[in-house]
Amino acid sequence: MLYLVGLGLSHATDITVRGLEIVKRCKRVYLEAYTSILMAADKESLEEFYGRDVILADRELVESGSDQILENAQEDDIAFLVVGDVFGATTHTDLVIRARKLGIKVEAIHNASVMNAVGACGLQLYTFGQAVSIVFFTENWRPDSFYHKIMENRKIGLHTLLLLDIKVKEPNFDELMKGRLVYEPPRYMSVATCCQQLLEVEEKRKERAYTPQTPCVAVSRLGSPTQSFKAATLQELAEYDAGEPLHSVVMLGSQVHELELEYLLEFADNKDAYRAAIAADQELFTKN
Amino acid sequence: MLYLVGLGLSHATDITVRGLEIVKRCKRVYLEAYTSILMAADKESLEEFYGRDVILADRELVESGSDQILENAQEDDIAFLVVGDVFGATTHTDLVIRARKLGIKVEAIHNASVMNAVGACGLQLYTFGQAVSIVFFTENWRPDSFYHKIMENRKIGLHTLLLLDIKVKEPNFDELMKGRLVYEPPRYMSVATCCQQLLEVEEKRKERAYTPQTPCVAVSRLGSPTQSFKAATLQELAEYDAGEPLHSVVMLGSQVHELELEYLLEFADNKDAYRAAIAADQELFTKN
Repeated sequence: MLYLVGLGLSHATDITVRGLEIVKRCKRVYLEAYTSILMAADKESLEEFYGRDVILADRELVESGSDQILENAQEDDIAFLVVGDVFGATTHTDLVIRARKLGIKVEAIHNASVMNAVGACGLQLYTFGQAVSIVFFTENWRPDSFYHKIMENRKIGLHTLLLLDIKVKEPNFDELMKGRLVYEPPRYMSVATCCQQLLEVEEKRKERAYTPQTPCVAVSRLGSPTQSFKAATLQELAEYDAGEPLHSVVMLGSQVHELELEYLLEFADNKDAYRAAIAADQELFTKN
Repeated sequence: MLYLVGLGLSHATDITVRGLEIVKRCKRVYLEAYTSILMAADKESLEEFYGRDVILADRELVESGSDQILENAQEDDIAFLVVGDVFGATTHTDLVIRARKLGIKVEAIHNASVMNAVGACGLQLYTFGQAVSIVFFTENWRPDSFYHKIMENRKIGLHTLLLLDIKVKEPNFDELMKGRLVYEPPRYMSVATCCQQLLEVEEKRKERAYTPQTPCVAVSRLGSPTQSFKAATLQELAEYDAGEPLHSVVMLGSQVHELELEYLLEFADNKDAYRAAIAADQELFTKN
């Protein structure tokens, strides 16, 4: 049996009781370590907490070495641990498909992920549209496919969750040219970088999917002991220091009810200005 | 301190290790028992598992009796348990706002909810639009505001998660007229009822937000030991017996990638017909 076990967002103890029981009795325990990180735990603290060895599964292992992960899983119980919930990335779906083909049973032990825990900012989850990924711009690659998706969401009043890029175990290209495989230090996109990239794209496209005054919420270290929210405009958040990773951003749509606003305003430095920004922003798509 | 603790979807052991530690040391433990149910546990089995008394919190207590829940929470630790994740319903947001006003600190212990665990059907979460609630039609009240929202989602290719009505502790009106307060047995909307209501509304409005042939996925007892999925058209699901509650339905949008389709087809009785239904359905909004 292959168990996909969600680890939640932050602490070693964010695993469910049922998940922990399964991890303890599995023959091999893999930790998927490239699409996200647990904020308040690492491999060593997990091993100590589980009383088990944990094998780090990087992209190569999951995408090319799945035979190794699934080896003998028809007989043995194998745990594959995923930060957040288990179906957050297509590579996990792919692993399940390959397991099925080998006649291996699969069970998922679900947990919180940013996709539902973001409700902690006060905005109702059922007024979120499609989520978008924001990747690090490079000199020659500044993809803006997110722009159209944000526009689509906002045209119908929906909020957008922006999932920020994580670069773990990326090879250094200069070293690679010299024939050496050296990894870059991990990089986690900040709220400020995300918002600067968004402003740059709006500046270029000028279709007013959003403006510098569009109200947003910076979500820092969701589910961790130092979790924080900041309600401010896009422009303000482009200058905001949200501290240690991981970060996300929510861009508001027009569907903000009074109760949600009351909740959100707790996170605004200037409540009147934020309220005014929401009112002004709501005009953006009403004329269309 | 007020702890909002998500219980996940099904088993008593779906609580996180951190959540369980908190429940064990709180002075009072409330279980919110009207917006959802835990499928494989009840008050008694939770009390046994926690080694603690659990107070059932019905709608009256949460919405009108919150002073009782929050009593002395400036000093004492109080746990408020919610099936799924903690910010699934506006009443929980409201409880946090009232706690803040009383100077009570609040911490959320997140968990899986249908909003993220539905990824288990194989469709990627970031291609879901706004979720909609489907309530039981009565003779005189057949609300169809969901129809426009599904249309909005599908126009931009997004899937829609349909959250099905739960009626717990509803007074019997005949008895109420006689001056007696008698509660109806709980009712949980089935996949078939949901799909029949959807067909009725399309039949009436004829705006082709969807058709009887639109591909859907029936989601039964998500996260429980008897979880199952059925990929079929809306019309087929209107006749489908999905078994014991709880049920949800996903209506597909056009953004279905090959990997998702491969995953989904495992749940179809007739793979070729389902694949054809997806192809035909994708034509619906391309002509606009």
